[in-house]
Amino acid sequence: MAKLDYKPYTSTEIGNPEIQRVAPKVHVSTGNDKVVDSIEDVVKATVKDGMTISFHHHFRNGDYVFNKVMRVIIDAGIKNLTLAPSSLTGVMNDMVIEAIKAGTITNITSSGMRGSLGDFVSHGGLKNPVIFRSHGNRARAIEHGDIKIDVAFLGVPNADKLGNANGMAGKAVFGSLGYALMDAQYADNVVLLTDNLVDYPNTPASIKQTQVDYVVQVDEVGDPDKIGSGATRFTKDPKELKIAGMVNDVITHSPYFKDGFSFQTGSGGAALAVTRYLREAMIANKITASFALGGITKPTTDLLKEGLVRRVMDVQDFDKGAADSMQSNPNQQEIDASWYADPDNKGAMVDQLDVAILSALEIDTKFNVNVMTGSDGVIRGAVGGHQDAATSKLTIISAPLVRGRIATIVPDVTTVVTPGDSIDVVVTEVGIAINPKRKDLIACLSNIPGVPVFTIEDLQKLAEKKVGTPKPLEFTDRTVAMVEYRDGSIIDEIKEVKD
Amino acid sequence: MAKLDYKPYTSTEIGNPEIQRVAPKVHVSTGNDKVVDSIEDVVKATVKDGMTISFHHHFRNGDYVFNKVMRVIIDAGIKNLTLAPSSLTGVMNDMVIEAIKAGTITNITSSGMRGSLGDFVSHGGLKNPVIFRSHGNRARAIEHGDIKIDVAFLGVPNADKLGNANGMAGKAVFGSLGYALMDAQYADNVVLLTDNLVDYPNTPASIKQTQVDYVVQVDEVGDPDKIGSGATRFTKDPKELKIAGMVNDVITHSPYFKDGFSFQTGSGGAALAVTRYLREAMIANKITASFALGGITKPTTDLLKEGLVRRVMDVQDFDKGAADSMQSNPNQQEIDASWYADPDNKGAMVDQLDVAILSALEIDTKFNVNVMTGSDGVIRGAVGGHQDAATSKLTIISAPLVRGRIATIVPDVTTVVTPGDSIDVVVTEVGIAINPKRKDLIACLSNIPGVPVFTIEDLQKLAEKKVGTPKPLEFTDRTVAMVEYRDGSIIDEIKEVKD
Repeated sequence: MAKLDYKPYTSTEIGNPEIQRVAPKVHVSTGNDKVVDSIEDVVKATVKDGMTISFHHHFRNGDYVFNKVMRVIIDAGIKNLTLAPSSLTGVMNDMVIEAIKAGTITNITSSGMRGSLGDFVSHGGLKNPVIFRSHGNRARAIEHGDIKIDVAFLGVPNADKLGNANGMAGKAVFGSLGYALMDAQYADNVVLLTDNLVDYPNTPASIKQTQVDYVVQVDEVGDPDKIGSGATRFTKDPKELKIAGMVNDVITHSPYFKDGFSFQTGSGGAALAVTRYLREAMIANKITASFALGGITKPTTDLLKEGLVRRVMDVQDFDKGAADSMQSNPNQQEIDASWYADPDNKGAMVDQLDVAILSALEIDTKFNVNVMTGSDGVIRGAVGGHQDAATSKLTIISAPLVRGRIATIVPDVTTVVTPGDSIDVVVTEVGIAINPKRKDLIACLSNIPGVPVFTIEDLQKLAEKKVGTPKPLEFTDRTVAMVEYRDGSIIDEIKEVKD
Repeated sequence: MAKLDYKPYTSTEIGNPEIQRVAPKVHVSTGNDKVVDSIEDVVKATVKDGMTISFHHHFRNGDYVFNKVMRVIIDAGIKNLTLAPSSLTGVMNDMVIEAIKAGTITNITSSGMRGSLGDFVSHGGLKNPVIFRSHGNRARAIEHGDIKIDVAFLGVPNADKLGNANGMAGKAVFGSLGYALMDAQYADNVVLLTDNLVDYPNTPASIKQTQVDYVVQVDEVGDPDKIGSGATRFTKDPKELKIAGMVNDVITHSPYFKDGFSFQTGSGGAALAVTRYLREAMIANKITASFALGGITKPTTDLLKEGLVRRVMDVQDFDKGAADSMQSNPNQQEIDASWYADPDNKGAMVDQLDVAILSALEIDTKFNVNVMTGSDGVIRGAVGGHQDAATSKLTIISAPLVRGRIATIVPDVTTVVTPGDSIDVVVTEVGIAINPKRKDLIACLSNIPGVPVFTIEDLQKLAEKKVGTPKPLEFTDRTVAMVEYRDGSIIDEIKEVKD
């Protein structure tokens, strides 16, 4: 699976290459025999040793599909597969580890991994290095043929007998099918799994009958309560609220805060608080946004409903409120991962983005960001849309100076995921740091009441003062994962943790 | 342009081949410099001698885009182009003839042609044979690479600066962009022309920014009054009403007229009358349809509104009422030509169709249908979706026995477009003929009050009795056009008319 001609990362600039896209094979039929009730039969008909298989992660920790399918694949004795999901969530960890141990999975490319699987890989559990890719880079890799999906197993909360499906109706709704749309369009074999076979023809058809080979009826595709869990609480933490307030100040004092601006806030407590503050600032200044982008939460779709945002461009929904809104509000447009963020495109949404608020596990004095490895060197994160949204005109990293006894601002990040070149402002609870190359921002953000400006080196020293200097991490020489930049170059490697 | 390995038509059965699809080249950019106000600049940047260029015909006779663009291409002195539009309408004829005479266009593939252009080609005006393809076959040919579009010029009634566009809002609305969606997805260069540049981002985006290279601002893209003209009058002709009544009787006495059935009625006076009668029958029998398909008219969208049809699957709209309905009714799903009818697919809509009502210029005693050449042998028609929809379970040809002094039912059609194998019932004002291979239909349609049943030979003799035997047409040996069956095989050739 791994490319042999990896190039090191050099620049955030993509330039104007000419790209020959790839296309799938089509097994022609009239479509009348797609419905089956046995995962075993479909696996037997489609999956062979050495293939690349894929899944989406729109069900997040409510996912039942991955484990159902992998159980069958392991039991069938299939070996040497490349696993290429849009991402891996915690609920899949045990099954992935079992599949690796059984020799069923020998290669992985994903947006990220956490928990026991991250630990397993960081300790050398998988022979071949994992390839981590951003959502936009996965789209790019699929459209180039770097990832050639043989069989995609896609869970959906509704589908008709020919495979017309969406994520908006049924028991286990998740809204946008954004990441899965890539698999549906480019995989040679597309298998839908659903617990809700509806009348033909099913519309709106996010996935179309022209893309689907099999529709497997299963009892349940997901746990509705766990699909949107975790991400969308509104914070009451004073530190998070302080950071959110300063993020809002940075936005509103920047030249981008004007009628028709656009933003991506993401999920997490601080992000939701930013959205709330931003709402107040927009009302006070009579400013409306042209679009909100990204992973979408209810606070953002509320802005749409209120007329403060003209369009929501939606590649995934983080909660049921956002998912429900996609069904009812025609101004919430479902977009695929390519439209969202493929850098090798005729213009992706992220290329039009004014303001992005992103999180970080670590930021270093070169403004490089790590969202992948913990302070112990262990894999516990995901590239997600981080590298992609960081191409925005004003990219803000929102993070506390320290977390417990661990510094967030460090001399060198453990793993470079998003290059400092694409980061403009770091916001912590004590104040902000502006990337020196953004002289224009230094001018307009340096005199905001209540927003002290530091150099990034000063912030790093403040953090160090609080928590001291940690013992350097120890790794072996062995590479357990490679992190691609969104253009497919290698921006960093992750080494095996030495215990 | 022409393939060298043409196979003769053998069967309506497509079977289960495995097809490798093709994909376009992408010229990567952030999308910020797409808007230009000069067709000259775009033509200079994109069109070179020997290329294949395309247009859509959704504006029908209200189209301004084709002539604007072709004027520039001719004046630029570009030669040897293949013209591959979804179809050609009368308003384009003079310009096509001029382009042929100038050596600008040397090959054409189209759904059809009429008027002066049909006359010109039939009299040998174009050196290379025209290739006529159905809408589904054009989609197939594009997806296979038989048609490789270098530059697509697509007129739209709205677009934003990056090329997100639909056919539903603006001055020159036409509704579904169904045919043009193929060009947008597969052409190496996609040029939109619009008279209505709207705020970014524009949704719903039938054509997406990820597909578009240039957006050209022009004063007018089309004449709203001529987009929907002609096709949608409701007939008062007693003969047409009689035929429509019998078509309705055939449908309602067939085994397909049951809850959840599906139909395509097309346009034209008789078709609209059928839709009206069908409505009454559906109400009387408490039957609703699962979907109506095809080129859509207001009487069909009225059925949707009334709840008699559950979904309208819409590849083009024949009138403003149908176009407006697509904007307001979420159950009217825009479908591309591949989803509509590509035979090399994982199931197209036509594969699910119960009842299709189609027209004919001629039908012969083998049930073969000609919708391409007139009784004088001159090209004056279009394959359209005829071959495609004829795959339905009950395909009805609705046609008068004679037109003026010309028989419609003939011993041999001048040009075989749709093979008799896919035709089930012919309905004329004197009665019906059932394809003998459909013994099941003979049983259920033979005793309908007021619907006399004839053999097709009897109908042919009745027609001959009315109008006599025409002098045989005289052609030269030269082939001026080839008619493909929907699978890409050659079903017939059209010879040069001898004057």
